[in-house]
Amino acid sequence: MLARGAVRMMSTEASSRVVLVVGGSGALGRACVSAFKAADWTVVSADRVEDKEADHSVVVDGAWDSHVEQLAAPAAKLGNYSAVICTAGGWAGGSLSEPEDAVAGAQSMIEACYQTALSSALVSYKCMRPDGLLALTGAAAALGPTPGMIGYGMAKAATAFLSSCAAAPNAEGGLPDAAHVTLIAPNVLDSPANRANMPDADFGTFTPPAVVADLLLSRAEGGDGRAGAARGEILEPRTAEGVTTWHRR
Amino acid sequence: MLARGAVRMMSTEASSRVVLVVGGSGALGRACVSAFKAADWTVVSADRVEDKEADHSVVVDGAWDSHVEQLAAPAAKLGNYSAVICTAGGWAGGSLSEPEDAVAGAQSMIEACYQTALSSALVSYKCMRPDGLLALTGAAAALGPTPGMIGYGMAKAATAFLSSCAAAPNAEGGLPDAAHVTLIAPNVLDSPANRANMPDADFGTFTPPAVVADLLLSRAEGGDGRAGAARGEILEPRTAEGVTTWHRR
Repeated sequence: MLARGAVRMMSTEASSRVVLVVGGSGALGRACVSAFKAADWTVVSADRVEDKEADHSVVVDGAWDSHVEQLAAPAAKLGNYSAVICTAGGWAGGSLSEPEDAVAGAQSMIEACYQTALSSALVSYKCMRPDGLLALTGAAAALGPTPGMIGYGMAKAATAFLSSCAAAPNAEGGLPDAAHVTLIAPNVLDSPANRANMPDADFGTFTPPAVVADLLLSRAEGGDGRAGAARGEILEPRTAEGVTTWHRR
Repeated sequence: MLARGAVRMMSTEASSRVVLVVGGSGALGRACVSAFKAADWTVVSADRVEDKEADHSVVVDGAWDSHVEQLAAPAAKLGNYSAVICTAGGWAGGSLSEPEDAVAGAQSMIEACYQTALSSALVSYKCMRPDGLLALTGAAAALGPTPGMIGYGMAKAATAFLSSCAAAPNAEGGLPDAAHVTLIAPNVLDSPANRANMPDADFGTFTPPAVVADLLLSRAEGGDGRAGAARGEILEPRTAEGVTTWHRR
């Protein structure tokens, strides 16, 4: 009975935790929605389309300067977020030698990656619990130069920089000192779109989104899930033969 | 006579060199226009307004996706550029704790810094001589976290990343291997706007734009002007009591 009561109490406590998944309808976003729901979190998904699996869905529209308010609105009803995870993104090519493609790609990455990451960081500052988790999605490729996909790399480099700003001490303008900040720097995620775009690749090297979601859940749960993890950490998942290992960068 | 002939020949050779100064009407841009003109370069200035001091002035207008073509147009008449220098920029505040200011500031920095830097890099790839100079303007502050001016820092971090991409080996998508790439990472430039915005500051710590222009001219001239300089270098000017020293970062 005691054990059972303890389990129920944990469950009640857990269900009071709310996660905001920005880009919740993408491949990584859906994996996060599933993982956090399975762990009894209340899940708010925000994207351009409704997410029926989530407990609450924010259909983000309008100009960028209204997005933070839209993302913050559910917290007024549900309580402040315990985790804010930005999985919004995508990919665009465009090398330095292709000015038209490069500008088009850069503009799409500003909107899909750069602006969503900053909106997420601003929401975390505005309505996240002091011991919450802010997780942003960078890219392993953009930890070095990416002249062949210049707009993608610039947006992801800016996201990594943003993560370092959120992880600065609170006295210097970063998040509350008990909050955790993680930048995920994936290689290729195992999504239907990536399989379609790279049909000849070895899919065994693609990282399953669920593996990333599990890592983020452990960081969000706190306690042992953050043991040894530095605030502002950059984590790269490397997958070979279907097995993923995590590397600090 | 020989000496005089040699001087004239140098002068003729020098005047065939063309520099494109993007943001030529700003404080740093004007200093570059003056310095290169004084060294007998042909100067093309590009900005939102006409620059009467320059030999040729491009008034950039319209959407971003037309800018590279506008910046490239003078090269069709004058010959390919020997240097492309992006001095366009500005500053905006907006901390993580101020979502409205942060988004407004970030948007203005995307347009003033991020997009102009990328346009400049694309023009250098398209119509710069293989041994030319691409110079971009980052910020000393953005070499570390800037949670108090988040959009400024993100745009300048992306610019530094762009510089590293342009400096990648040509075989990997960077500029031709004989080209030089310099990122200037200033602290506060001694401009009328900065003096007006920081009236109580010690102006002796402000870096004179002419000092930066002289450094860029020496890099553009090549030869001894690039001796010991790494492609992709990051140079921070530090000024104290009116004296500026250069630091590799």
